[in-house]
Amino acid sequence: MEKQVIIITGASSGFGALTARALAKTGHIVYAGMRNTLTRNANRVAEVEQFAKDNKVSISAIEMDVSSQESVNEAISRIEVEQSNGIDIVIHNAGHMVTGALEAFTPEQLGELYDINVLSAQRVNKAVLPAMRSRKQGLIIWVSSSSVKGGTPPYLGPYFAAKAGMDSIAVSYAAELSQFGIETSIVVPGSFTNGTNHFANSGYPDNKEVQKIYDQKYPNLMENVSLKLAGLFPDGADVSLVSDEIVRIVNLPKGKRPYRTHIDPADDGSEAVSNVADGTRSNFLKRIGLEYLLSVKK
Amino acid sequence: MEKQVIIITGASSGFGALTARALAKTGHIVYAGMRNTLTRNANRVAEVEQFAKDNKVSISAIEMDVSSQESVNEAISRIEVEQSNGIDIVIHNAGHMVTGALEAFTPEQLGELYDINVLSAQRVNKAVLPAMRSRKQGLIIWVSSSSVKGGTPPYLGPYFAAKAGMDSIAVSYAAELSQFGIETSIVVPGSFTNGTNHFANSGYPDNKEVQKIYDQKYPNLMENVSLKLAGLFPDGADVSLVSDEIVRIVNLPKGKRPYRTHIDPADDGSEAVSNVADGTRSNFLKRIGLEYLLSVKK
Repeated sequence: MEKQVIIITGASSGFGALTARALAKTGHIVYAGMRNTLTRNANRVAEVEQFAKDNKVSISAIEMDVSSQESVNEAISRIEVEQSNGIDIVIHNAGHMVTGALEAFTPEQLGELYDINVLSAQRVNKAVLPAMRSRKQGLIIWVSSSSVKGGTPPYLGPYFAAKAGMDSIAVSYAAELSQFGIETSIVVPGSFTNGTNHFANSGYPDNKEVQKIYDQKYPNLMENVSLKLAGLFPDGADVSLVSDEIVRIVNLPKGKRPYRTHIDPADDGSEAVSNVADGTRSNFLKRIGLEYLLSVKK
Repeated sequence: MEKQVIIITGASSGFGALTARALAKTGHIVYAGMRNTLTRNANRVAEVEQFAKDNKVSISAIEMDVSSQESVNEAISRIEVEQSNGIDIVIHNAGHMVTGALEAFTPEQLGELYDINVLSAQRVNKAVLPAMRSRKQGLIIWVSSSSVKGGTPPYLGPYFAAKAGMDSIAVSYAAELSQFGIETSIVVPGSFTNGTNHFANSGYPDNKEVQKIYDQKYPNLMENVSLKLAGLFPDGADVSLVSDEIVRIVNLPKGKRPYRTHIDPADDGSEAVSNVADGTRSNFLKRIGLEYLLSVKK
């Protein structure tokens, strides 16, 4: 396996940080994208540098605010200067969650969440794809969510909607990029309540009055959902299962990487639905004479 | 069946206009929401008035720009003044489509499409739900798309992502509104290429340079997709199938309305996937002790 140049977004902490380190440890050149590298995340940057030194691996933090096309472009340009063969792999991991009654969120909040979870990936794609298309190779890994096809507990509506949009965009890109030689892998984690900062850092609805009405109707609903989700997880199952799976995908030869893979120890049913859905997608592309879009051009 | 007071969004033309008229003809009081009633759509307003007169039915056009909370609030307030028992049914139909290579769309274009197709519904819900919650009744009908679970031809990525988000939001609302006595019906049309203005009025990517590269890679792809989609449709099948289904749902008694219904004469496979997905959702809510959210409170 050749060394791959990899950029992962949202890698300051949690699952992104873990995956970045796991990939570096197997010998790849990893850029851990994060914002606020000079301020709030300066200690995260130092941790990455220490990890690289301690383990004698190639990993570095890079300033990349995925809400800004300019910041994304700068980061990608810097990597392309440092790595003469360009970027091989992008991992769309940046994301943010909110919890609360859907009605209590403003349209603006829903729009912001779509921006963080979906438009961010579009910004990164716009920066990396031209070079990948020229080189006729590349791999885009999308960190989706089992909620897209599986279990959907209440009070996570805006987040689930954004992840549904992101998964849909991944599916469309998979076909459209196929003949440029660019692969797609959609990684679908279940609701890991530990080892990510999703639940801890989640945002809340702006309309407190409406949320209060729902709290009266459904007392302690969010707390109960969190506990129930955590309870479904087998002991010892943690997010390293997801980073292990990404490492496995990255280390597979081109053309052998899975279009979609599920990592959900609690098994919310998403994998069974995806199997039917992905089969339906394939059949439909065959029916309209576009079967060739299902295979990545060599 | 009592007369229902119904507001339908995006009802100036195409499928929305058809559904508004069909509902009025079965005896309901219908408000056909549209923007630019005094300017571009003034003749649409006149057509609605003529239809009401000719058929002796209760239908009127109402100014409602779903991209503006203020405009939505004004429309809903006006209906609530005119109809002392308030609004019984909302139909989220407004939407817009774009066609082209996903990479050629700017993040801003993707955001705008999410606004038109998803945030628009959130604006309307914020205006109508408080009264529905107080009255402990109401029906929200969502016009989704078979692309969410079924066939996904290329070059429709931003639209499919927005519809996936909309369908996801409908699913979350269904559970959260259930105990307020408010019903949800998700209507899933296939890709009707005639009788809607979706394909005719579709938008295009801002980045013409990138689109050109895709056009060279995939010559005539969009034209071929449109022809193939049209070819899958049985002769004589048109969008009146969808408006008929909405009329049927509206006329069912409370508690008997379907959570989800598909109308796709070309059968892209979406219904089979939805059946598995909706079963998975039910099982998951049972697993986490929230089975009661699957039934609407009487």
